[in-house]
Amino acid sequence: MRSEQEMMDIFLDFALNDERIRLVTLEGSRTNRNIPPDNFQDYDISYFVTDVESFKENDQWLEIFGKRIMMQKPEDMELFPPELGNWFSYIILFEDGNKLDLTLIPIREAEDYFANNDGLVKVLLDKDSFINYKVTPNDRQYWIKRPTAREFDDCCNEFWMVSTYVVKGLARNEILFAIDHLNEIVRPNLLRMMAWHIASQKGYSFSMGKNYKFMKRYLSNKEWEELMSTYSVNGYQEMWKSLFTCYALFRKYSKAVSEGLAYKYPDYDEGITKYTEGIYCSVK
Amino acid sequence: MRSEQEMMDIFLDFALNDERIRLVTLEGSRTNRNIPPDNFQDYDISYFVTDVESFKENDQWLEIFGKRIMMQKPEDMELFPPELGNWFSYIILFEDGNKLDLTLIPIREAEDYFANNDGLVKVLLDKDSFINYKVTPNDRQYWIKRPTAREFDDCCNEFWMVSTYVVKGLARNEILFAIDHLNEIVRPNLLRMMAWHIASQKGYSFSMGKNYKFMKRYLSNKEWEELMSTYSVNGYQEMWKSLFTCYALFRKYSKAVSEGLAYKYPDYDEGITKYTEGIYCSVK
Repeated sequence: MRSEQEMMDIFLDFALNDERIRLVTLEGSRTNRNIPPDNFQDYDISYFVTDVESFKENDQWLEIFGKRIMMQKPEDMELFPPELGNWFSYIILFEDGNKLDLTLIPIREAEDYFANNDGLVKVLLDKDSFINYKVTPNDRQYWIKRPTAREFDDCCNEFWMVSTYVVKGLARNEILFAIDHLNEIVRPNLLRMMAWHIASQKGYSFSMGKNYKFMKRYLSNKEWEELMSTYSVNGYQEMWKSLFTCYALFRKYSKAVSEGLAYKYPDYDEGITKYTEGIYCSVK
Repeated sequence: MRSEQEMMDIFLDFALNDERIRLVTLEGSRTNRNIPPDNFQDYDISYFVTDVESFKENDQWLEIFGKRIMMQKPEDMELFPPELGNWFSYIILFEDGNKLDLTLIPIREAEDYFANNDGLVKVLLDKDSFINYKVTPNDRQYWIKRPTAREFDDCCNEFWMVSTYVVKGLARNEILFAIDHLNEIVRPNLLRMMAWHIASQKGYSFSMGKNYKFMKRYLSNKEWEELMSTYSVNGYQEMWKSLFTCYALFRKYSKAVSEGLAYKYPDYDEGITKYTEGIYCSVK
């Protein structure tokens, strides 16, 4: 597996030798000192270029970066609509395991890029001295934010209301409908509330990582096992058990947050728990 | 539990007696003859009104519809940005178990509504004879569509490329990251491919339902059990097993679709399976 130095040299040498490329930045976890470096980190590179279209004419120029296992061009797909406007990107997994997420950005959009990025940006090359201030990467945008009373209530409202869709799916023997609502809405709001609780104790000055992937660091083994048990959803009994565990966990953490921040604990819990138990008993 | 007739009478009587309400429609599953009726179906009602804001001044007027367990006003939340433009909606679960999803739409947007709806619409009341043609609800927009060669390749590309993120999460002991990528991208593309396979045999003239909830009807017990086994993801060994089962199922169905439609079977499988097995062996 080529080293970080080797990879960065390839990306920068290419940029230095191509007149169309005026500015190069590195983004994402490789700029984030709060993320332990490892070989799985993507190289999130942006080339700010005078003519994006000229690069798109063919893919030969990408060969220089290394032999590929596979590539995706997200803005060149029929099944998934492009989402990057005038930008164009390449996601490449190399045979040596390195991974590149290369984005081509029209140089005329550089100002907008620097005004609206997520903070995790490092300038690697600036041929025209476009950047006249110090750019220091930081992950502040991803820190857990202290919820307002309204945001707290909204999270409770969404958790309990969408739980009724899980109940509907289970009662109708439409388990895939139930699972998706648990995975996509109910549990994410549980994880949000857990993160609020943890941050209310540790301070709102850290990130829980994408998909709350660092959550385990902040839970006891018992709490972690309880959370993980909600991910066994391969049958109806498992799903009911998981739903009731989510209720218990959400109740515990939302009561703690409401006490900690002196926010009103809403009555959705009482009504929806009774509703759920009623239906569970009728279908058991 | 109040009957459908009782509920519809309440919604229509209210509309008849309120001058601001000019047009009423029913949407969703209650208009869809392909969905077996049951008590869990929402009442998806739209009131086309002269003045949305006047309804928003307070919620007293909603009391007439019945005693509530809970309500959500999706366009009046801080945590979740509104998504309906000038429209405003109320999701209400009543104490008797009925559920209403009521949307207020400015009457001036009625034309746009009828031009851009999903086909599942029935006109219940039209005080000003606004609609001068027959509106017949149909679920055609939800039928499985025959994939183009490019869409087929895109689905394969997305499945195999995002699988590497699941592998990354598992290898890093960041299981929540891995689970989310399996649940939100990898498995949905497996379900899409399975639906394409089923429709390539049965004809592209039916809907698999929200979240593929009718999938079970079209699978053998063995196939269904295999799919369901991928939903047991409450630990690292379970996740690896689920991922490899998804690989086997995707391979099986995508090969069948590629043969059935004479589309090229892409080589992503080979490369990513080898990559995955390599990392699995290194972390086992």
